[in-house]
Amino acid sequence: MVKIGVIGGGQLARMMIPASVNLNFDLSVLADSTETSASLVTSHVGDFRDFNQVRAFAQEVDVVTFDHEHVPIRILEGLGDLGISVCPPPEALQLTHNKIVMRETLRDIGAPQPRWIVAGGKVPTSSEIEFLGGYPLVAKKPTGGYDGKGVRVVSSPEDYADWLADGLVLLEEKVDFVRELAQLGARRPSGEWLAWDLVETTQVDGVCAEVVAPAPDLDSAVAAKAADAWEGIAEAVNVLGVLAVELFETRDGAVLVNELAMRPHNSGHVFTELSLTSQFEQHLRAVADFPLGATRTVADRGVMVNLFGGVDHDLVGKAMALFPDVKIHAYGKSPRPGRKAGHVVAVGDDHIELLGACRKVAHILQSGVYDG
Amino acid sequence: MVKIGVIGGGQLARMMIPASVNLNFDLSVLADSTETSASLVTSHVGDFRDFNQVRAFAQEVDVVTFDHEHVPIRILEGLGDLGISVCPPPEALQLTHNKIVMRETLRDIGAPQPRWIVAGGKVPTSSEIEFLGGYPLVAKKPTGGYDGKGVRVVSSPEDYADWLADGLVLLEEKVDFVRELAQLGARRPSGEWLAWDLVETTQVDGVCAEVVAPAPDLDSAVAAKAADAWEGIAEAVNVLGVLAVELFETRDGAVLVNELAMRPHNSGHVFTELSLTSQFEQHLRAVADFPLGATRTVADRGVMVNLFGGVDHDLVGKAMALFPDVKIHAYGKSPRPGRKAGHVVAVGDDHIELLGACRKVAHILQSGVYDG
Repeated sequence: MVKIGVIGGGQLARMMIPASVNLNFDLSVLADSTETSASLVTSHVGDFRDFNQVRAFAQEVDVVTFDHEHVPIRILEGLGDLGISVCPPPEALQLTHNKIVMRETLRDIGAPQPRWIVAGGKVPTSSEIEFLGGYPLVAKKPTGGYDGKGVRVVSSPEDYADWLADGLVLLEEKVDFVRELAQLGARRPSGEWLAWDLVETTQVDGVCAEVVAPAPDLDSAVAAKAADAWEGIAEAVNVLGVLAVELFETRDGAVLVNELAMRPHNSGHVFTELSLTSQFEQHLRAVADFPLGATRTVADRGVMVNLFGGVDHDLVGKAMALFPDVKIHAYGKSPRPGRKAGHVVAVGDDHIELLGACRKVAHILQSGVYDG
Repeated sequence: MVKIGVIGGGQLARMMIPASVNLNFDLSVLADSTETSASLVTSHVGDFRDFNQVRAFAQEVDVVTFDHEHVPIRILEGLGDLGISVCPPPEALQLTHNKIVMRETLRDIGAPQPRWIVAGGKVPTSSEIEFLGGYPLVAKKPTGGYDGKGVRVVSSPEDYADWLADGLVLLEEKVDFVRELAQLGARRPSGEWLAWDLVETTQVDGVCAEVVAPAPDLDSAVAAKAADAWEGIAEAVNVLGVLAVELFETRDGAVLVNELAMRPHNSGHVFTELSLTSQFEQHLRAVADFPLGATRTVADRGVMVNLFGGVDHDLVGKAMALFPDVKIHAYGKSPRPGRKAGHVVAVGDDHIELLGACRKVAHILQSGVYDG
């Protein structure tokens, strides 16, 4: 039996459980407490920033993978030095650890991306700002950001002076995009890779809120560019497991890489119901170097809407009664404002109808009110 | 959080895990060892024939349900006396415990069934045998049989004399059926119920081997009779949870009830991929008295083929590479000849093609050989 160790006990680790049950993979988790979303498979409680604790966990499994991207690269390199398999490997993961490394790597491999500069210590020159298309710009801290944290839309140097005083700041053109897209796929050590259909994502305050798959009204040239970008990145940096490439679609039909995630990603939750193979199953197959599962869809469209705050069980019953076709996923988290607590998915023919149903379920679950 | 306790640690309990994760139901199992298919959620190791051990388990959950039907009725009644919720309740379960009780109850509620008599102590009279259509007949021990055990096709009284010496024997006409069908659905305490499409099942040596859903070339009148039989039984005896009604389809378009199962059933495994709501999710929703999920299908057909013996992980990789569309479920059991060790499912348009793919995967997994 393949033993897969996941560092981090969030909802992504939790949602690997069903696939591990079906495939009879031995899934275990290193979490920071016994009270996480993945408590059912938590074998070790420890600190992912402590090499010895991570090593003790890793030495009991065949391959280490991740629920989040916060494990320090030096720890992962240390595991590699001990001959422990880490998927994705540190050379790939560093792109998600440092946005400047990501931009440099994407430039080197010719992947399409927004214009960017690195501001270090001093205020950028006017010609640098002009190169980026002028203010407003997007300022990003190179490390530590996720779900909109560490990202600001800035209109003048004063808006990011505190970050500049602190170190390097990545400045990116503010792309006048038509919409945001995400290309997900998986790649395994043997080199085999397979992508899902391109999805459209909607962010609220920098956090993924809704997904429609496949992206409606999609130009086939745009789809091809997204797939090319995905393949280029996955191959160039040896991604192993699921890679999510978040993209801007521009008015002139280009795609530009916004962010990367090297693990199952919120934008891919819809595939659990929509595709023959969920991103969680595919991630496990990929990191275990098993052949990948087919990614064709079982319906014309799928829609996912996130649940924030908490998921009340009584309200789940109410929502289920009104919307028997909507699938509810609750992450077993204690309620907290703005916290991703679950998501809902519907599949069918018409994404407008599906979105309507999912939004109503989310509304009931979050407010307790059904107002038609 | 709803706490659901399952008695028995087989593959049915195991396959409730994914649904419990999605819905955030607290699933626990009473098993006879820590090494069962459901070890991940096994909270108690004990004997389901020991009232005190079952009670200790049951008092920690909101509702007790089952992986198998072997728990003595008196134990379940004892739980009821303590105010513990048992789904399905003893009055329903007794039909699966004693085939004579089942035949009598089906007669009383007017459900269609083969002709039957009870032989007790002495050899049946020639007029009794004539009533059943003459030999060969099907002889069944009233209790303790499953998966073809306790069932014989008999051609003379000598063939069941040992059973007659032992007690009562159920004798049934040997139905000249066109094929076997199974009608599955679920019912919850509030009275809501919902069925899936009727499926065609193929048994080998009395054990379910293959399922095609929905049953091909199905006469709508036959489908209606099967659904009526299901509803009649579920309502009459207060089934709570999944009920599987195994049926014979006769040459003149009748359906006759062969067997009942009051839990998720092998004939319903196909719905995990084929339907919006799996039988495992529906069973948990039903016993927790949550609204039932939609049972519509996401493809024209689904096919399931059982895996017997064992599931070798290296062969899984081989099969996955050749058949990326086929979903493999392994139950985590040690290999044993004839043992149900897993199943495979494929969904699509053409059940002949799907059956071909599933059989090839099963052949690879069981023999290690792919011979095209």
